[in-house]
Amino acid sequence: MEERIYRVGIVGFGGMAGWHYELIQTIEGLEVAGIYDIREERCTYARSQGIHVYDGLEALLADERVDFVLVATPNDVHKSIAIQAMEAGKAVVCEKPVTLSSQDLQEMMDVSERTGRFLTVHQNRRWDEDFLTMCRILEEGKLGEVYRVESRVHGSRGIPGDWRKEKEHGGGMVLDWGVHLLDQVMYLMGGHKLRQVYATLTHVTNQLVDDGFTAELTFDNGQIFLVEVGTSNFISLPRWYILGQNGTAVIQDWDKNGKLVWAMGKDEEDVVPVKTAAGLTKTMAPRREDTIYTEPLPIVTSDIRDFYRNVMAVLEGKEEPRITMPQVMRVMRLMEAVFQSAQTHQAVVFSPCGL
Amino acid sequence: MEERIYRVGIVGFGGMAGWHYELIQTIEGLEVAGIYDIREERCTYARSQGIHVYDGLEALLADERVDFVLVATPNDVHKSIAIQAMEAGKAVVCEKPVTLSSQDLQEMMDVSERTGRFLTVHQNRRWDEDFLTMCRILEEGKLGEVYRVESRVHGSRGIPGDWRKEKEHGGGMVLDWGVHLLDQVMYLMGGHKLRQVYATLTHVTNQLVDDGFTAELTFDNGQIFLVEVGTSNFISLPRWYILGQNGTAVIQDWDKNGKLVWAMGKDEEDVVPVKTAAGLTKTMAPRREDTIYTEPLPIVTSDIRDFYRNVMAVLEGKEEPRITMPQVMRVMRLMEAVFQSAQTHQAVVFSPCGL
Repeated sequence: MEERIYRVGIVGFGGMAGWHYELIQTIEGLEVAGIYDIREERCTYARSQGIHVYDGLEALLADERVDFVLVATPNDVHKSIAIQAMEAGKAVVCEKPVTLSSQDLQEMMDVSERTGRFLTVHQNRRWDEDFLTMCRILEEGKLGEVYRVESRVHGSRGIPGDWRKEKEHGGGMVLDWGVHLLDQVMYLMGGHKLRQVYATLTHVTNQLVDDGFTAELTFDNGQIFLVEVGTSNFISLPRWYILGQNGTAVIQDWDKNGKLVWAMGKDEEDVVPVKTAAGLTKTMAPRREDTIYTEPLPIVTSDIRDFYRNVMAVLEGKEEPRITMPQVMRVMRLMEAVFQSAQTHQAVVFSPCGL
Repeated sequence: MEERIYRVGIVGFGGMAGWHYELIQTIEGLEVAGIYDIREERCTYARSQGIHVYDGLEALLADERVDFVLVATPNDVHKSIAIQAMEAGKAVVCEKPVTLSSQDLQEMMDVSERTGRFLTVHQNRRWDEDFLTMCRILEEGKLGEVYRVESRVHGSRGIPGDWRKEKEHGGGMVLDWGVHLLDQVMYLMGGHKLRQVYATLTHVTNQLVDDGFTAELTFDNGQIFLVEVGTSNFISLPRWYILGQNGTAVIQDWDKNGKLVWAMGKDEEDVVPVKTAAGLTKTMAPRREDTIYTEPLPIVTSDIRDFYRNVMAVLEGKEEPRITMPQVMRVMRLMEAVFQSAQTHQAVVFSPCGL
């Protein structure tokens, strides 16, 4: 029996779509049927690469060979294109953030429900190996009960100069990077309700949209996750900082440098105080080396092609979606709460049941 | 004209008093008249060191040679001893935290006012060189406008096993280390009102008192200071992390390792995206080396003996106190707000005028 080939039509052919295009070339059973972009220069470029270019969105959607549509346009037009595609009978993979509001997202989900067309979102950073390594550390339990996890992405270029700096197109770091980092946390904590979030935004290089943020998430089990994005950080803090009752882990960067350190005992005897310029401290003196273990990180590898393999398996009725719309909606509502908290300078409490 | 000698009577002769005793030996014009401790073994130890031991607090206070009293007992008895000393005509230097509440502190300040006796608090960490180096970085302005400063002290021994783990004696990390770190920030920001604080406490090794905390302070000029103490942190984050509009500084530790990094330009052209396991990013790509400067820290040195020199100069009427009671009260009220915020899970807003 011959294997079924799935074909994707790509709408919006910017930098991220180029990444998808290259990825798809490496996936068995998946092909790009063609692309469409409202910018003529991107169509010309695609043609120069031997990629079929449709005359318009309607032509792409009318092509019966197209099994699903990848929406990789600026954020503000995801919704209309995705809805049009589903109405035309296509399944849809949408870039993140799927929409600019939970209300818009609900409209998309309603159309998916009504048309019976599969809708999912490219939350690709669930496959990032630093994230999976963090999850493994929590699973292994060597740090004891983990009570606080800090997730940071720091850059120093400000925000990109294109549509991503404009509010009406859905710019800003909460929607651009926050959607990934918050999705990672909410996915990991799937079984737990979010009790509250306290957030601040930065406007260092841009007044129109946030160019960074901090969000402290408290879950019903007491675990706290700090999520932070900065684009004016010329020295980066670690990507992950994980605090357990009995130890600490650091994942320094995307290359997964880092370590675990945990304790054998209390080491309260014979403490040599640390002298600083103006005082001394026993409490903050470093531990004796023989009372702690240091270990390399339990590195997890991944294959991002599994995202598309799952999309195809869902279309074949063989798997459940890896990224479900209720998950996406939860993150969207959390991002709205991040904005609300930053605006009101208060924690947003999800009561009585949590988010 | 012969130089005047000042004599201090020390009440409470534990670890911190030993540090004071050694320091005083090195200060011209200052001597220890003697000590008193309710623990007989500490008196025996003092005698063995050739230090005069008073028969009781009353005897110490009755000694006309004693110019001022250093109160270095557990925190809960600072107030009664300090008041008794002032009533006996002595000036008082009190260890931190001066009291457990602003109400108690007000009583002490009232007695100081009524008796005309000088009262100050040993906020020694204003002389810590990492702190002074941070202040110098802000003064120099090389980072551009500084919008966020993070102050962290991380250890991994839990909290000390003595009275410092008991609430009734004024234990816990907010009162022990927070009082220093919050004092540093409030001192630096003296000209600005504190608009709000959002805080969380940890109870990793101890349920009776906090064994760590985070407090995010927002000032009327928009500057944010994060103050964090941890005692189950087996890997430490940097002591100071300073974010300016045009650069970043890190002071790694009390030894003042660290650096400044700042930008020459935007470096938006020819960005080489960073590929991670599951995606790519231009925004978070590192800057080209030729678009940033890296500089060593502008190290500031200090002499903690200046604390006592100032006390003597105040008693001589030659200087204003370096640590004033309104400053101490502001920090005490802030610590109360930290507890309130942690308990209510909401930011405490100091309205309408700020703290």
